[in-house]
Amino acid sequence: MLKNWWYCAGWDHELSLGKDALLARRIAGESIVLYRKPNGGVVAMEDRCCHRQTALSCGRKEGDSLRCMYHGWKFGPDGRCIEIPGQERIPQEACVRSFPVVEKDNWIWVWMGDPIKADPALICFAVGPGDPAWNIKTSQLRVDANYRQEIANLSDLSHVAWVHDQTFGGTNAWSTVKSKHTLRPRGLDTETWLRGVPAVRFVQHLFPVGTLVDMCFDVQMTLPCNFIMHLKIFSAGSNTEGPSDGQLLLDTYSCQAITPRDEDSVDYYYSWGASRETDSPGMTDLLHEVIGVAFLEDKRILEAQHQRMKEKPDFRTIDYIHDAGPGKLLWLLDKFLKEEAAEQASVVEG
Amino acid sequence: MLKNWWYCAGWDHELSLGKDALLARRIAGESIVLYRKPNGGVVAMEDRCCHRQTALSCGRKEGDSLRCMYHGWKFGPDGRCIEIPGQERIPQEACVRSFPVVEKDNWIWVWMGDPIKADPALICFAVGPGDPAWNIKTSQLRVDANYRQEIANLSDLSHVAWVHDQTFGGTNAWSTVKSKHTLRPRGLDTETWLRGVPAVRFVQHLFPVGTLVDMCFDVQMTLPCNFIMHLKIFSAGSNTEGPSDGQLLLDTYSCQAITPRDEDSVDYYYSWGASRETDSPGMTDLLHEVIGVAFLEDKRILEAQHQRMKEKPDFRTIDYIHDAGPGKLLWLLDKFLKEEAAEQASVVEG
Amino acid sequence: MLKNWWYCAGWDHELSLGKDALLARRIAGESIVLYRKPNGGVVAMEDRCCHRQTALSCGRKEGDSLRCMYHGWKFGPDGRCIEIPGQERIPQEACVRSFPVVEKDNWIWVWMGDPIKADPALICFAVGPGDPAWNIKTSQLRVDANYRQEIANLSDLSHVAWVHDQTFGGTNAWSTVKSKHTLRPRGLDTETWLRGVPAVRFVQHLFPVGTLVDMCFDVQMTLPCNFIMHLKIFSAGSNTEGPSDGQLLLDTYSCQAITPRDEDSVDYYYSWGASRETDSPGMTDLLHEVIGVAFLEDKRILEAQHQRMKEKPDFRTIDYIHDAGPGKLLWLLDKFLKEEAAEQASVVEG
Repeated sequence: MLKNWWYCAGWDHELSLGKDALLARRIAGESIVLYRKPNGGVVAMEDRCCHRQTALSCGRKEGDSLRCMYHGWKFGPDGRCIEIPGQERIPQEACVRSFPVVEKDNWIWVWMGDPIKADPALICFAVGPGDPAWNIKTSQLRVDANYRQEIANLSDLSHVAWVHDQTFGGTNAWSTVKSKHTLRPRGLDTETWLRGVPAVRFVQHLFPVGTLVDMCFDVQMTLPCNFIMHLKIFSAGSNTEGPSDGQLLLDTYSCQAITPRDEDSVDYYYSWGASRETDSPGMTDLLHEVIGVAFLEDKRILEAQHQRMKEKPDFRTIDYIHDAGPGKLLWLLDKFLKEEAAEQASVVEG
Repeated sequence: MLKNWWYCAGWDHELSLGKDALLARRIAGESIVLYRKPNGGVVAMEDRCCHRQTALSCGRKEGDSLRCMYHGWKFGPDGRCIEIPGQERIPQEACVRSFPVVEKDNWIWVWMGDPIKADPALICFAVGPGDPAWNIKTSQLRVDANYRQEIANLSDLSHVAWVHDQTFGGTNAWSTVKSKHTLRPRGLDTETWLRGVPAVRFVQHLFPVGTLVDMCFDVQMTLPCNFIMHLKIFSAGSNTEGPSDGQLLLDTYSCQAITPRDEDSVDYYYSWGASRETDSPGMTDLLHEVIGVAFLEDKRILEAQHQRMKEKPDFRTIDYIHDAGPGKLLWLLDKFLKEEAAEQASVVEG
Repeated sequence: MLKNWWYCAGWDHELSLGKDALLARRIAGESIVLYRKPNGGVVAMEDRCCHRQTALSCGRKEGDSLRCMYHGWKFGPDGRCIEIPGQERIPQEACVRSFPVVEKDNWIWVWMGDPIKADPALICFAVGPGDPAWNIKTSQLRVDANYRQEIANLSDLSHVAWVHDQTFGGTNAWSTVKSKHTLRPRGLDTETWLRGVPAVRFVQHLFPVGTLVDMCFDVQMTLPCNFIMHLKIFSAGSNTEGPSDGQLLLDTYSCQAITPRDEDSVDYYYSWGASRETDSPGMTDLLHEVIGVAFLEDKRILEAQHQRMKEKPDFRTIDYIHDAGPGKLLWLLDKFLKEEAAEQASVVEG
């Protein structure tokens, strides 16, 4: 998996100082423990004591530090061992790998590669639940599928018509619409306009029967697998290109960070909510509820797919028109994977 | 596993039109989805979309066809793709493997090999619950054992005395009786007479204490692993060979189709019931109840055996006299497996 | 794993004659069945019929013998087959491997190697619940960890201060104390004195606030992994070496036999109790309760450690001063493992 990238390790409120929380995560094949220092800063280190390998997440926070509760070795927030009970000398090599951490948009981001390259500017844009302009609720989910499947799922919204027929669906327009894909250096933007169509099913009851709308799904995906969607619903206007000239009925942001745990599972941290301007009582609860249902719809499909792919790893599949988005983004992923592999090889040779 | 053979995929009532049922099965290492067309016909195809491999059993029946509910590809009952939402061109190779299906004796049979060779005459004889001459009830069971163990178990009924001591047992005659084995082209017939013995334990309370009976177990086994037993109980007669000259007290059929899912588990579809002529109130319920208990007795023994075999795959076992039936049938199985392998090799070379 | 060694198979009361118990165990990678003969003697044999490998623990005790309940083969307590229903001839090789068994200190001990070498004198010293001088209660636990981890855990009690902070802990003295390790031919003795310290936490409420005590942890470990601890608590005396001159407040024995099932799990048979002389109402119940809690504390740490070790089998760990005990005992284990491997190789060559 990609190493020199930011991975989401969860929501900031999971690292509660009140609960003195230690968070154990599996990220890109590594076991990580996270905790919050008294000053609020977040520490991430390998969840493995350098003495006998037991999980530091079974340990105890002591101020800025973390003590392994097997034999009491204590590690500073940089991972360096600062106390070995019963022994004065602390070996130079007694340290646990630590990882750069940044909190942004109420997500905790961990850099899994070379710390020197950990540039916070590389973290994807998002709108967090703390943003005062939006009323956003959060949740999370485990899915037993490979993250490449998630990338493919999220970069082709035509699946909405089928997987989410009872939630986000409600129009056939998904099949024939042309999305506009724009490759970015580290991701893919996809803009999709559905015009003069019924609204997504779960809000249809809010409008008079037969109401048609214009909807804009403005999606920014960033590798490894982060999905930021700005969804706007307008009353149906007359424009067939460019912005809708209808009235803005509902303006929402859904931010989704999907973190590969290993080749067979991901942790999914997601949110949704309406802008303060277009919000109404119960609206964000409705969004929160329906996205929870919809992600179980995805989970069922993706886990079945994952099983089938493991049964026949060499099965030859057939592509079609809507695979353009997934194709571009997986191509970009593979490009970066190859670059990192080449870099790694040159380091080893050097 | 054998490919050019019929495998039982379940009871016909499982494919209810009322429930709009899709059935997902694992048969001989393949994932299969089954559904019933509006005209009642049954379709079986690989449970894997040719686009992105997700399970078609998560899909939706539409008339005769099946739609994958990931991206909406629609497949006719022959597996050929007939609609790709958003794309006019349907590639020639866009099809899912379909399997010949026959319904017979209320079982659904699927042919796992070359469709050209799918001759319904090869399906084993059975007496289904729909046969008006018999009052038969059905059930099913998963057993975590290899199907070769099931073949060996069912082709040597001497195990009845021990495994089923509290159900089908009740006499020591099993140990010393000589069964008559007759190899058929695709299976083995075994006829066993127990004469002047106590009845099988679960019906002993129906007769006066000390009643002796003649019992005939007439078994037809057909590969891969189907077991049809005609059990007749007579009052004890004077004949020591050939048919009993006692009075026919109970005449029953038990039909059992055991389908290997993979090397480690089977699905077991079974039935039992009395002839209308010898039935009495509650009799078929009694048979249905006792066979359910007895198959849990088998399940316990076979699953323990399976574990032990996996622990020591090279353990050298010791044969004895009652292994004749299992020996013949497993020999036949191996012969067909070798033939299919040779055929496959010649196809590959050719 | 070591073969020419005694392994504990459980508590004697588990082989109840009243319940006609058959015990299935996994010991050092072998499946074993144990039962008690009418005269009270215990039989251990491989839990695998030599006919078709099914588990003899699904079988039936018949006097001194054990009958396989698949096809009725009957085995004497020496493992030799003595009856094959339906066949007069009993092949010479029809026998199940049997294992020497000794009951000692209410534990059942099984010798997993060459029976000729099975010397009962090699069984470790212990104080059983049947010893009239002590009031001892027993229990057991499964831990999903490798037995080498258990050896390391038990031969370095400094972990008590951290893992068992809320139970056996209560003093920092563990970190700096010097234990006296004495290697024995088949194990390691460790004597640890803590002087002028608070008592172990779970009995602190029994004494006036601020009470200091002298405590002696006298531990005998014997390979593969047996742990016998004599713990004495005295009022704090003035001696800084040798026996305490304080008053003996509590005198206890805890005996623990840890049996490797396979590379990934152990069965833990343990006891604790006070001497009749220092016992008081509820004291042994207190010991029994707290050791149950403490062993769940160990289980959590060891199972997390086991997971981490499997994730990175080649991870380089760092040793420290308290690894002396584990180092000595694991060195001894490896010495014996090498000796047995060499012996085995010479037998094969010879």
